[in-house]
Amino acid sequence: MSTNLLRLILLFITLSITSSLSTPSPADSPPYLWPLPAEFSFGNETLSVDPTVTLIVAGNGGGSLIIRAAFDRYMGIIFKHASGRGSLLSRIRFLKMVEYDITSLKIVVHSDSEELQLGVDESYTLMVSKKNEQSIVGAATIEANTVYGALRGLETFSQLCAFDYITKSVQIYKAPWYIQDKPRFGYRGLLIDTSRHYLPIDVIKQIIESMSFAKLNVLHWHIVDEQSFPLETPTYPNLWKGAYSRWERYTVEDASEIVRFAKMRGINVMAEVDVPGHAESWGTGYPDLWPSLSCREPLDVTKNFTFDVISGILADMRKIFPFELFHLGGDEVNTDCWKNTTHVKEWLQGRNFTTKDAYKYFVLRAQQIAISKNWTPVNWEETFSSFGKDLDPRTVIQNWLVSDICQKAVAKGFRCIFSNQGYWYLDHLDVPWEEVYNTEPLNGIEDPSLQKLVIGGEVCMWGETADTSVVLQTIWPRAAAAAERMWSTREAVSKGNITLTALPRLHYFRCLLNNRGVPAAPVDNFYARRPPLGPGSCYAQ
Amino acid sequence: MSTNLLRLILLFITLSITSSLSTPSPADSPPYLWPLPAEFSFGNETLSVDPTVTLIVAGNGGGSLIIRAAFDRYMGIIFKHASGRGSLLSRIRFLKMVEYDITSLKIVVHSDSEELQLGVDESYTLMVSKKNEQSIVGAATIEANTVYGALRGLETFSQLCAFDYITKSVQIYKAPWYIQDKPRFGYRGLLIDTSRHYLPIDVIKQIIESMSFAKLNVLHWHIVDEQSFPLETPTYPNLWKGAYSRWERYTVEDASEIVRFAKMRGINVMAEVDVPGHAESWGTGYPDLWPSLSCREPLDVTKNFTFDVISGILADMRKIFPFELFHLGGDEVNTDCWKNTTHVKEWLQGRNFTTKDAYKYFVLRAQQIAISKNWTPVNWEETFSSFGKDLDPRTVIQNWLVSDICQKAVAKGFRCIFSNQGYWYLDHLDVPWEEVYNTEPLNGIEDPSLQKLVIGGEVCMWGETADTSVVLQTIWPRAAAAAERMWSTREAVSKGNITLTALPRLHYFRCLLNNRGVPAAPVDNFYARRPPLGPGSCYAQ
Repeated sequence: MSTNLLRLILLFITLSITSSLSTPSPADSPPYLWPLPAEFSFGNETLSVDPTVTLIVAGNGGGSLIIRAAFDRYMGIIFKHASGRGSLLSRIRFLKMVEYDITSLKIVVHSDSEELQLGVDESYTLMVSKKNEQSIVGAATIEANTVYGALRGLETFSQLCAFDYITKSVQIYKAPWYIQDKPRFGYRGLLIDTSRHYLPIDVIKQIIESMSFAKLNVLHWHIVDEQSFPLETPTYPNLWKGAYSRWERYTVEDASEIVRFAKMRGINVMAEVDVPGHAESWGTGYPDLWPSLSCREPLDVTKNFTFDVISGILADMRKIFPFELFHLGGDEVNTDCWKNTTHVKEWLQGRNFTTKDAYKYFVLRAQQIAISKNWTPVNWEETFSSFGKDLDPRTVIQNWLVSDICQKAVAKGFRCIFSNQGYWYLDHLDVPWEEVYNTEPLNGIEDPSLQKLVIGGEVCMWGETADTSVVLQTIWPRAAAAAERMWSTREAVSKGNITLTALPRLHYFRCLLNNRGVPAAPVDNFYARRPPLGPGSCYAQ
Repeated sequence: MSTNLLRLILLFITLSITSSLSTPSPADSPPYLWPLPAEFSFGNETLSVDPTVTLIVAGNGGGSLIIRAAFDRYMGIIFKHASGRGSLLSRIRFLKMVEYDITSLKIVVHSDSEELQLGVDESYTLMVSKKNEQSIVGAATIEANTVYGALRGLETFSQLCAFDYITKSVQIYKAPWYIQDKPRFGYRGLLIDTSRHYLPIDVIKQIIESMSFAKLNVLHWHIVDEQSFPLETPTYPNLWKGAYSRWERYTVEDASEIVRFAKMRGINVMAEVDVPGHAESWGTGYPDLWPSLSCREPLDVTKNFTFDVISGILADMRKIFPFELFHLGGDEVNTDCWKNTTHVKEWLQGRNFTTKDAYKYFVLRAQQIAISKNWTPVNWEETFSSFGKDLDPRTVIQNWLVSDICQKAVAKGFRCIFSNQGYWYLDHLDVPWEEVYNTEPLNGIEDPSLQKLVIGGEVCMWGETADTSVVLQTIWPRAAAAAERMWSTREAVSKGNITLTALPRLHYFRCLLNNRGVPAAPVDNFYARRPPLGPGSCYAQ
């Protein structure tokens, strides 16, 4: 059953050529998977799926509520059309004993651990075959080591299922399918920014749900910035006075609910509290955090109170965010006004510190607070370019500015997250999907042991000009381009003409998102999130 | 308990002035209702609402499943925050016997009829008061003649409820409330266009759900046009070969599900099949409907087959759409190519018909088909400007082109729907909310008996440049401006400076939509659906 991947890619290219000029037809629909699995083979049978398909679980982890809930969600997605699961038509068919090819979905999960951490095993095997001599019942089987691998398999299974409008049944084309899949990178992130614009709970949930469709697995929550401080911190309750309004806030319970909702979809939430810059809003509740009224950021480096507050925030957040990574920011720190503030200037002189020394002192002290709370610190790349090996060796460097920073960071033994602004900043609307897709996190890093230090990448949805009204269509479909780059094999995404190997599938995936209620924007417009220029099919715009 | 409306408006203006330059605070939050109820009075108490608030029903219609389902929906909306209904916190509070002011919601519905037709009684009374000498338990009470009036009352109740982040409870400010409400117009529509771009079922449901928040009550479904024919018609099954693709389709069951979903929210679905123009896509499945390959619309007026197909479509649709109105289009009919098609030319000569005569013949024959199926025909205004009193007297004229067409139509005894393109076409992105709001359907019609013939108005979301990715933010918030114009009293919406009387409430309503997961666009941008220009509060953009 194993398969020659290259042959498949070539076959896929051939199929794509035939389909690239028209909307998809059943014959060429099977390879419309996004992101492309690591290995797969398929046949030429069409199988019908029973709307009352039953879930059979096995293995130590099969009984997990995460599996049961995901099965129910995906049944809702797969049998969305009214003649599907639960409808009168399906019940009549059931009574008439219509025979379906696929009557059960078996999910085998070996581990009973539901711990979701960096590098959790997301591999799975998916088999779909008709009943025949070998098997008495036709079935789909997902086998995975963890519940999170099983979730990825369920997503792939849902993408194999297509509603056929003629027979009014859900069908799987080109069976039997054998898929053996796993991600290339363990960290596949999306950043959201709830400080420049508040995003309501429901909208964050929409974003998380949509991430699971593209197998992204980390929501990087840039909670706070200079504009607003929306999260409740019980230890320093005045901080959320820095929210835009009394209604643009998250309670501790809201944040915990977001973490729970994400975990049910195999997605970690990495919180960010950006210090010492990007923190002006903190002072609305505690003006002592401002060096002076005319110098409101960076935070006051001289006071223990500043670090007490950071410690309090992190202690409160530790109860909410179980993920091992915590982001401390550290970017774009302009220390000029420290020099103009008398008591800060005196403090610097007393320690014989330059302002750069003070910036380092701040970053390192904040790192130690995070580490003391059993967190691995993540910092934006300026901390590495400024302080290099002085950073705690556990630090994960997040790239944004310089294209070869991961190359430099891993050479010094640091782990790195790739998110170059020129390609993976989603608020840069002039970056078309091809550029997002062709951006390779491992570029320039040849040594396999160093490549392993690049834990993955992240697309960043900064919020200055993206609020609730446009956030999802600014994220999609371009985030999907990065998602495939990070999930699929480097070989699969780097060879061939992507207009043939990827574009038809991306069109299909964009329409799949639309069908699932996600307002992903047209793929073809040069500028991201532009409305369609005229009438047309979703599959061709 | 009755109230002087004018005094309230003045009070409201005063409150708005204080709040217009900052984000809302509890003191000025109570009047943030959209659309403004016909009559209301309030006090100065703050009441807490029990997260386990129970539904008590009474009256012949109280037991309706529509009420039960709506109560459950609104409880999800009102207690959205994790510390709300069903959360651990609320259960602990319950065990601790925390006393809430509002512990039950009583809904009294007098009629057991669930028929939803034009002019259905949507009036309701809503009372919210603390327990006191007069009432042993604190309660909210909605009283209505029909379940649909009760739905409107539930929406208003949900707008009175605000989550207070300090106490982490849902509160109602400025109680006791006494609201006596009813709509000014019986027809308050929104058009969607699924021919220029297919809209998935989930997206149509999102639109319907959002309509209910603004108390709109008719979804005008412009199903078919020249670009695509997405709906299944069992009698002529090849018609949906005119769909954009095999996936951009609606089954009969899908359409019925949309009608059911809308009815649960008190919203009628008016289907449109636009003839004889705007129908090119019909010929993909039945080329005989085209006069010739080079003349693909208007439909072939000469053949009985054309009218057989219309009759078949309408017979199929009658089983799906119970609403008494059915839209036959009739707009933008360019008959030039009829003259260039030999058999049509001969047919015209044989009957001594001008092409205008033939256009009329078509429109009237289509009307009779609709009437024979117990439908009231609706036609775009060109049919009236062209044929006047020759139209069936039951015809409802829909305005779009000429600003005084309703004036002329009602003068001739026709009913009319106002939807002038200069103000209420939502694809016109350069019409700001103020112009939408200030547009009065009864302008120029003074006689009360003629005013009654204007059954209402409609905002039109044409689909040429609005697909799934942008449709909701093109609709909102401007559709809300028209919704208040159509619901609230003419006095309330026509007096005063709307920057003070309406804008702060519209900001609030836009954020309410965002909080409910609807991507309504910023209010302040001149061009509709533009993203925010920079960081800021939802309540100020």
